[in-house]
Amino acid sequence: MAEQVLGKATMEKLVSLSQRRGFIFQSSEIYGGLSSCWDYGPLGVELKRNIKEAWWQAMVRDRDDVVGLDSSILMHPGVWVASGHVSEFSDPLVECKNCNQRWRADDLKGDTCPACGGPLTEPRRFNLMFKTFMGPVEDEANVVYLRPETAQGIFVNFNNVLNTTRKKLPFGIAQVGKAFRNEITTGNFIFRSREFEQMELEYFIKPGTDREWFDYWLEERLNWYLRLGIKREHLRPRQHTKEELAHYAIECSDIEYLFPMGWSELEGVANRGSFDLARHAAGSGRSLDFFDEETKEHIVPHIIEPSAGVDRSTLAVLCDAYDEENDKDEIRVVLRFHPAIAPIKVAVLPLSRKEGLAQMARQVYADLRRSWIVQYDDTQSIGRRYRRQDETGTPYCVTIDFQSLEDNQVTIRERDSMNQIRVPIPELKSTLAAKLGGEELFVLPPGGQVWKQETPPGQAR
Amino acid sequence: MAEQVLGKATMEKLVSLSQRRGFIFQSSEIYGGLSSCWDYGPLGVELKRNIKEAWWQAMVRDRDDVVGLDSSILMHPGVWVASGHVSEFSDPLVECKNCNQRWRADDLKGDTCPACGGPLTEPRRFNLMFKTFMGPVEDEANVVYLRPETAQGIFVNFNNVLNTTRKKLPFGIAQVGKAFRNEITTGNFIFRSREFEQMELEYFIKPGTDREWFDYWLEERLNWYLRLGIKREHLRPRQHTKEELAHYAIECSDIEYLFPMGWSELEGVANRGSFDLARHAAGSGRSLDFFDEETKEHIVPHIIEPSAGVDRSTLAVLCDAYDEENDKDEIRVVLRFHPAIAPIKVAVLPLSRKEGLAQMARQVYADLRRSWIVQYDDTQSIGRRYRRQDETGTPYCVTIDFQSLEDNQVTIRERDSMNQIRVPIPELKSTLAAKLGGEELFVLPPGGQVWKQETPPGQAR
Repeated sequence: MAEQVLGKATMEKLVSLSQRRGFIFQSSEIYGGLSSCWDYGPLGVELKRNIKEAWWQAMVRDRDDVVGLDSSILMHPGVWVASGHVSEFSDPLVECKNCNQRWRADDLKGDTCPACGGPLTEPRRFNLMFKTFMGPVEDEANVVYLRPETAQGIFVNFNNVLNTTRKKLPFGIAQVGKAFRNEITTGNFIFRSREFEQMELEYFIKPGTDREWFDYWLEERLNWYLRLGIKREHLRPRQHTKEELAHYAIECSDIEYLFPMGWSELEGVANRGSFDLARHAAGSGRSLDFFDEETKEHIVPHIIEPSAGVDRSTLAVLCDAYDEENDKDEIRVVLRFHPAIAPIKVAVLPLSRKEGLAQMARQVYADLRRSWIVQYDDTQSIGRRYRRQDETGTPYCVTIDFQSLEDNQVTIRERDSMNQIRVPIPELKSTLAAKLGGEELFVLPPGGQVWKQETPPGQAR
Repeated sequence: MAEQVLGKATMEKLVSLSQRRGFIFQSSEIYGGLSSCWDYGPLGVELKRNIKEAWWQAMVRDRDDVVGLDSSILMHPGVWVASGHVSEFSDPLVECKNCNQRWRADDLKGDTCPACGGPLTEPRRFNLMFKTFMGPVEDEANVVYLRPETAQGIFVNFNNVLNTTRKKLPFGIAQVGKAFRNEITTGNFIFRSREFEQMELEYFIKPGTDREWFDYWLEERLNWYLRLGIKREHLRPRQHTKEELAHYAIECSDIEYLFPMGWSELEGVANRGSFDLARHAAGSGRSLDFFDEETKEHIVPHIIEPSAGVDRSTLAVLCDAYDEENDKDEIRVVLRFHPAIAPIKVAVLPLSRKEGLAQMARQVYADLRRSWIVQYDDTQSIGRRYRRQDETGTPYCVTIDFQSLEDNQVTIRERDSMNQIRVPIPELKSTLAAKLGGEELFVLPPGGQVWKQETPPGQAR
């Protein structure tokens, strides 16, 4: 594929646009920033909410077999001993003896410092869990960890959920929440940060049905990204090699997205087997199994885990929506968000601030915002305002002009095509509702957009 | 008021019901629990989501003058120096010289240990911020704090939001998120925990309009709780005395709720004056002011802050909804949630599992769940199932019986009155929609339920 100058989303352009329009800011920026922590601004918070809401809708509310959970970030330290995080969740750390910079040994090609060429220390294991102290005494007995994944909160509540919902296998528990990892190296904007948000489903199955459910969830999750509007050619599944597998995983496939820095993990779909429930049963002394009424057997379920990143999904959506095109003498930057996740659905733009016009525009605005997030903008030229809404990703602009005062009609301008149509005000809301999709939001686009693995991912590759 | 045996929500009953039905579990319970951290189960997570959604809708999406934000939990330590938290955010801690138990000195009546009667140490200040280390070296230079309030993330983004939204005074920035306080004493279920969730609005105003906006927000927030369905007689505003005021506050009124342990803070509405922006301007060396285009003046806005607790709101909603009544020989426990926040809106209950009946019930279920969260339950007697839905707070049960197969009608049973009506299946959805409120959700109940301060809270008290 030839290098294109126009339309290419580089990380630099995304960071700049995010700051300029209010999607994402550097955390504590007025204090010089805090490395790899990010704040979501007025547009970013709505975009992120829409993505999380789409996940919750698809994974919990639309399903019979999944319930939600919201467990705490601080957990009993015994959880992390049993899960293997205290012993296993570490990276090899080396330090330059010359300039004291620290590096992940497995990221380095040579054995000298990439910054100054100095010699490096022997690697030591560095645990990635943030620790803090509960209560007033800062000693080992009071150490608690910030969770490095939300999953463990689900496993330790297995009995609680089973007892209160009386679900039968297969069933799932879903959770959205913050997790923290004290990464040695971070970067690529919100791709790898020390504080991040996860959307995890733990799906409990009968042992022996692993293949079927692993394939089901991998396909289901690929389709979810398509429904968010992400282009098919920017997504691919990639199976982990034996060497790559995490300590708990029997099998794992990443769903990768073609980020500006190349194909990188957007989500992992893992078969965790019986590892987690068995370890927590041993660690806590409680049995964590499922009693099958039909066969009268106690079963330790296997777990299929689709684990997605909220921030990575947001970044992928931004990358995928980003576009540039020549428009007369200028470059038009436009975020082509799926209407369902666009932070602002409609902008109302009166051509002038004159009294009659403004009054009409305010009425249109008041009516539309009962249904959607709508922005009112009456500053600067109409061209500048269209550009601003393009950069915001607003699917439709409604322009009220002097003609509107005479014919009671307004102009709808579509973001992607820039086509304009004229509609009577009484028909405006229903016209926009039809265009925005209403209940049809998140229905898969027709024709070849449904992900179907041609070769089951666990085989033949 | 006479002590009532029936209908009284004690904390014990709420904890037990929450565990039994899956609202709230003790965190890490299989490991013996983690003090004062709580997990929200399948029903709790939906209830909490509904409350947060109601707040976001009322405070951000329904308003022209407020935008949202989602800042990180880990912030630059300079933030907490400037905010005063490093120097001021502490409680006096004493320890028993005999049994080594620790207490908050200002909670104690005498100077001997409440547990064993032993002598106490002199009080020392104990800072309530959790600290952790960013990066691999655990020294003072790498200390970062878990935020003890979400508000500071808003203040340090004041310029970012102003520049990207071009808002004019007065305007607000709203945020929902986790905060952490290393409390010496915790308790009363989810009322005071070390990890909790806040819903904070920072509303920036012209100095001199403080009275008007303080009163406005106090009233607005009281009304929000009424709209959630909380009884008026269980809410009251209480103005802080001079001695009680936090270090940043010029004035503060708590919105108190009559919890089982007595009147306690549900939300604080504070006038923070120019404290925060001035401190962060000094701390960061950046100017944090608003340039008034009309008067050509640089203004440091004052801030009115309504700061609500998600967990406390959830607890208040649970307390307020809890009811018991005599029903034949039994006590009926019922959660009388406002339909808008009930975790499950409708339950579908086939009288038998027989094929034709089950098929019809499944169809009704499939149709209803396209609009709402609906539960299907075909286990045990119909009486047991009604009781279970009452304890879950489900407003409506739809029962399908053998008669239904003949007349194509089903029974709607209303939670509060237990009245039953019979409706044709084609009219079921519209009947339920009318009862559940649809777009009318969160409209204030008519007749005397609107909060109107008779005496403005800042005066005459």
